[in-house]
Amino acid sequence: MSKTIDIKESVYARNEKQAMELNKMLSNKGIFCVNVLGAPGVGKTSSLLQILKTLGSPAAVIEGDIESDIDTQKLKSLGFPAVQINTGGACHLDAPVVADAFADLSFSEGFLFIENIGNLVCPVQYLLGEHIKLLICAATDGSDKPYKYPAAFEKADIILLNKCDLLDYIKFDMEFFISGINKLNPNAPVFMVSADTGAGFDEVVEWLKNRAHTV
Amino acid sequence: MSKTIDIKESVYARNEKQAMELNKMLSNKGIFCVNVLGAPGVGKTSSLLQILKTLGSPAAVIEGDIESDIDTQKLKSLGFPAVQINTGGACHLDAPVVADAFADLSFSEGFLFIENIGNLVCPVQYLLGEHIKLLICAATDGSDKPYKYPAAFEKADIILLNKCDLLDYIKFDMEFFISGINKLNPNAPVFMVSADTGAGFDEVVEWLKNRAHTV
Repeated sequence: MSKTIDIKESVYARNEKQAMELNKMLSNKGIFCVNVLGAPGVGKTSSLLQILKTLGSPAAVIEGDIESDIDTQKLKSLGFPAVQINTGGACHLDAPVVADAFADLSFSEGFLFIENIGNLVCPVQYLLGEHIKLLICAATDGSDKPYKYPAAFEKADIILLNKCDLLDYIKFDMEFFISGINKLNPNAPVFMVSADTGAGFDEVVEWLKNRAHTV
Repeated sequence: MSKTIDIKESVYARNEKQAMELNKMLSNKGIFCVNVLGAPGVGKTSSLLQILKTLGSPAAVIEGDIESDIDTQKLKSLGFPAVQINTGGACHLDAPVVADAFADLSFSEGFLFIENIGNLVCPVQYLLGEHIKLLICAATDGSDKPYKYPAAFEKADIILLNKCDLLDYIKFDMEFFISGINKLNPNAPVFMVSADTGAGFDEVVEWLKNRAHTV
């Protein structure tokens, strides 16, 4: 058992070292890198599409999925440069696969978004060379998520609550949700958005642009 | 790298052996065990509550969460025997923790439901001593889930599509969803349900009771 844990720790340490190198390389090129995290079905790709449409700056996407290239095709069909990583079963991306995918993108300056595997648990432990983590939740998933998956909320730099256009049709305790986040990570801004209607994304993009300037 | 993989395989093999023993013990007692899988927020606990209310047979729940006992308190407050497992960060349950939790339940005959960690990836690889896997999806998470998380759909014995009361308010391609499942697992029945209204659970419970009789 201790052997397994030692190996796991060395996996984290090795990944962290590679992530730091990647982060430095991206910073030197003038690329601001965002690790996009969220459970399956919260609307990671559709939120990214809204961000890309609103951004008006050069941007590219590395798409992580266990299988399929549905999301990459969506992004490419709208003219955004995107490259697909299929993990073939693995539950998270890591820095080496991101470095390989970046080499496949002809992208030299601007915003780089990495859409991680749909999973609120494992991807949180692996740095990918990002400057910030953007966490997306869905109102339809309920207001108890910060209490059940605290690490994801603790490590997020910015949190989007998506599917807010459905708030009238569901039970969602906003006070409970926000208070759960505030206990874990009082500095993270929370934006109410709808990737279906586009509502809220002007504010998200303004925040991202301001944050990119500080790096 | 080969060392890591070998250890992972031996972890799976050891878990499988313990799961088989647990399954035999449960079968001998006349307990039918259901491993409940699904992403965060699909309504695993609220679906279980509907099943328990409809079942009218002895039943108990082992609740897996990374943190918090919100779901166990919900179940207990309605009079259902439940025991909590907190994994403290781990992304799945395994057979030994389930065996320990079962020892804490005073439960001798009937249906045992194990609510796994909210995660569509890792829990699929770990047997828990169950007779069947019940997979819950949410219509609000979109119709592409079978294509993106195929292993969960391949291994499910029964699939619930929850939050069908919201189908009028969202885009959901039912044909695409069902056709994705049929390609992976044509024998798994798919039930349209709403854990909020209770719709569809009579049929789910009838299926579960019939299946329990065959074990």
